Amino acid sequence: MRRSERIVRLTRTLMNHPGEPLSLTDMADQLDAAKSSLSEDLAIIRDVMDEDGEGTLRTQMGASGGVLFEVDVAWTKAQEFLERAIVRLRQGDRILPGGYLYMSDVLAEPDVLRMVGKMFAKIFASVAPDIVLTVETKGIPLTVMTAQYLHRPFVIARRDHRVTEGSSVSVNYVSGSDRRIQTMSLSKRSIKQGARVLIIDDFMKAGGTVKAMTALLNEFDADVVGTGVFMETTEPEGKKLVSNYVSLLTLAEVDEARQCITIAPGNYLRETT
Amino acid sequence: MRRSERIVRLTRTLMNHPGEPLSLTDMADQLDAAKSSLSEDLAIIRDVMDEDGEGTLRTQMGASGGVLFEVDVAWTKAQEFLERAIVRLRQGDRILPGGYLYMSDVLAEPDVLRMVGKMFAKIFASVAPDIVLTVETKGIPLTVMTAQYLHRPFVIARRDHRVTEGSSVSVNYVSGSDRRIQTMSLSKRSIKQGARVLIIDDFMKAGGTVKAMTALLNEFDADVVGTGVFMETTEPEGKKLVSNYVSLLTLAEVDEARQCITIAPGNYLRETT
Repeated sequence: MRRSERIVRLTRTLMNHPGEPLSLTDMADQLDAAKSSLSEDLAIIRDVMDEDGEGTLRTQMGASGGVLFEVDVAWTKAQEFLERAIVRLRQGDRILPGGYLYMSDVLAEPDVLRMVGKMFAKIFASVAPDIVLTVETKGIPLTVMTAQYLHRPFVIARRDHRVTEGSSVSVNYVSGSDRRIQTMSLSKRSIKQGARVLIIDDFMKAGGTVKAMTALLNEFDADVVGTGVFMETTEPEGKKLVSNYVSLLTLAEVDEARQCITIAPGNYLRETT
Repeated sequence: MRRSERIVRLTRTLMNHPGEPLSLTDMADQLDAAKSSLSEDLAIIRDVMDEDGEGTLRTQMGASGGVLFEVDVAWTKAQEFLERAIVRLRQGDRILPGGYLYMSDVLAEPDVLRMVGKMFAKIFASVAPDIVLTVETKGIPLTVMTAQYLHRPFVIARRDHRVTEGSSVSVNYVSGSDRRIQTMSLSKRSIKQGARVLIIDDFMKAGGTVKAMTALLNEFDADVVGTGVFMETTEPEGKKLVSNYVSLLTLAEVDEARQCITIAPGNYLRETT
């Protein structure tokens, strides 16, 4: 096999398996190549990914040697992405009765989801979560993509108890978006004791929903190792129920009368400087 | 830039953008390469993807030339994947009270989701959907991944009307899994008139839920161009409410007393032979 062909296959394998440790021996067997050639190929890929800010390739040589590809997002690309998202999300016709912001279309675009998944995976890889948790419904796509790039499973807390999930644990909570008491439940089978859990959601106001997920995790003796939200609100300032989280965007104001929406980047850009 | 470096970048770009037509001129500019060199590189990538059954690369030369990477799944890999899934899903401890099958853990694994997304994208690329539709909750991850590989947006029908979605259209229906009348609603903003829609869901018994999605789409003057489900049931045989669909797996029996689950491949393998 020519080097160029091997590089196509290696790049493909790494990109299909971000966050997953791969065996060098298996790769050498599959490609019918010597480990020394493989190392040279991987060095080329590593340098390119590094230079482009698209990922980090960690290789461990030796008998049980492995290679791990972690996605990266260059800071300037993250900034450009957030600026473009802000331009789109502050269009006046997105204001719904009650001052809500319609953003389901933006969060359903493949490029947006891929970028958000990569950004969360980049910032939370270091806390090594075992599993990613969200609550239905709108946080699910972001969670799926984040879990893909971290190579971790996810679990979805339900707002009603479903027979197809088996025995569950439930908590009641009040969320700012709905302004009413709700129930959130999680299948007993879904999270192991002592699991390190990353919480992802689309929107956070005071943080009642995230706090409820944390309470639910306490019932499983599981630990929250990180929280990421696509958009937080500036209000209630200094009164968040959650102290430590990463937000991609901050919604400052939705003025229904003037059809004016004010959005700024969240704390993600500061956290990744 | 060396050829090997260019090939890493090209492979990465194509894999990051499956289903998306990319401009050759843009690529040549970004890589600071002549189009002729690019064509040679793309030919190498095309041949490798082809040989491995991992994707099809369509290139159109000329001034407005473009390149499109469509994911493929080799038939034997699909078969192996389904066989492995069957082994896992027929474990007796997956039977829940009422004869339901617990499969949320399997459908939350990154490798499973990626493969399912690719299989649906492969089989439905030819019907050129504009958008992918599902109903909350468990079909969402499959839908997100399918939409990624097709490079299309998706839309989620809700089981309750949410204020954050704006005006919606609703239908009532009876689903076999829940055995009660339910409501399904879709935001008016979410689907354009005349859209070609691919329906994806996790589980189909008689097909009441899929039929309800079709009814909902009629209200938008949109067309169903395909339906894909992860698992269908053999019962009710010959009495499905949906006539044309692709299933990855078929659930034949859940015997609570004997803790015995019977699962076979669905019609996907026949459809792709």
